[in-house]
Amino acid sequence: MRIALGVEYDGSSYYGWQSQPHGNTVQDVLEAALSEIACVPSSVIAAGRTDTGVHALEQVVHFDTEVVRPLSAWVRGVNAKLPKNVSALWAHAVPEEFHARFSARGRRYRYLLLDRSVRPAIQHGKVGWFHLPLDIDAMRLAAQYLLGEHDFSAFRAAECQAKSPLKHLRQLDIRREGDLIIFEFAANAFLHHMVRNLIGTLVYVGKGKHPPEWVGSVLDSRSRALAAPTFAPDGLYFCSAEYESKWGLPSSR
Amino acid sequence: MRIALGVEYDGSSYYGWQSQPHGNTVQDVLEAALSEIACVPSSVIAAGRTDTGVHALEQVVHFDTEVVRPLSAWVRGVNAKLPKNVSALWAHAVPEEFHARFSARGRRYRYLLLDRSVRPAIQHGKVGWFHLPLDIDAMRLAAQYLLGEHDFSAFRAAECQAKSPLKHLRQLDIRREGDLIIFEFAANAFLHHMVRNLIGTLVYVGKGKHPPEWVGSVLDSRSRALAAPTFAPDGLYFCSAEYESKWGLPSSR
Repeated sequence: MRIALGVEYDGSSYYGWQSQPHGNTVQDVLEAALSEIACVPSSVIAAGRTDTGVHALEQVVHFDTEVVRPLSAWVRGVNAKLPKNVSALWAHAVPEEFHARFSARGRRYRYLLLDRSVRPAIQHGKVGWFHLPLDIDAMRLAAQYLLGEHDFSAFRAAECQAKSPLKHLRQLDIRREGDLIIFEFAANAFLHHMVRNLIGTLVYVGKGKHPPEWVGSVLDSRSRALAAPTFAPDGLYFCSAEYESKWGLPSSR
Repeated sequence: MRIALGVEYDGSSYYGWQSQPHGNTVQDVLEAALSEIACVPSSVIAAGRTDTGVHALEQVVHFDTEVVRPLSAWVRGVNAKLPKNVSALWAHAVPEEFHARFSARGRRYRYLLLDRSVRPAIQHGKVGWFHLPLDIDAMRLAAQYLLGEHDFSAFRAAECQAKSPLKHLRQLDIRREGDLIIFEFAANAFLHHMVRNLIGTLVYVGKGKHPPEWVGSVLDSRSRALAAPTFAPDGLYFCSAEYESKWGLPSSR
């Protein structure tokens, strides 16, 4: 039996999603909790592998089990075994053809950027920070150059394992709420470090170092050397993965 | 020279505001940072002493110093010495008659309550949690019994050191944003545990254990035994202290 699970986590104290020899990843603690409930070792596959310090509002994973339990037991039981910074949101039985990663038709990310003179305290680890006022309108103009299907090589980490740098960026909305700037991204898929590299580049425009059209030329160059440095992981949230309605998963945020 | 300082902190890992023999309080780390910048031991007085696990968006403190520095140095210098979960927001020179606690004409608190079936992960330590849907309208009706000047003995901790249980509750607004319920409190001053005891009591109404008018009878009884248990500190934020405009402090949030 294949089960899909929605999972929320605070990535501040983990070495990212993916299991590592030195441990302390979100996958490690989730598999440990599932294995306890299933009474056999369980491994999971996620819609999106997040980096060190990156959070998830609703990561989607799947796992196979021969243990028959009510779906609510997977949520409540697993939450009783998980550390306080990870929680299962829902569980749903899916057919064997469902794959958390390959069935996903899109992913959403959010970046929270605290734009004020002093560093965050309450939101430490949960927001990026820039100390000078940023020009939202300029960043919105710059975002227009990024929408659509493009070769995003200029915003791709050297370690990226994606087969193709062609991605379709469907949404890049930017709004301000008090001293917080909120960036919403939607695409079919993202390259490694793509959102954090885009944030760094948009911040260059927002602080007036470059005009909005510079982002278009960086994109066209396909050269990582021209874009800005990778921004901090602290403000990055994997929001949701999008699946066809035929799988019947709970509608994501 | 007397200086007022606005301070933000994440109280999750502190034994509250007030200095204790065993250390690890917000006052301890702030005084240590100020003493380093002032090069002499410095002690501070706060507008409101918060409990273990309670946060502050803008605590106001004052301290006296004979060291002459630009005001910005107090903010930037102190922030360089403070741990990441505490930050100075602003500094302002005030006359000797100003007192962070006694000059405050009012205080504001906020309580964030996550109202969903599964426990928080990302907001762990930063929100209270209730697992069943709460009736906001019933809680709003109950709040009407609390507004105004009353003897709040029914919501007062045994250890409370306030001279009088008479407080004037000027505001108690309740709103829902997604699965978060936000309670906003304003009063001239608050008794020890008053907000957390009020939250516990409002939750009893919200979950249907008692009707809204029950809160009026609990208030009238002045008996702590009739009100609900003290709710978790995790979701409680000291928002701001209100001062007369003559002090010229930066306007609070």
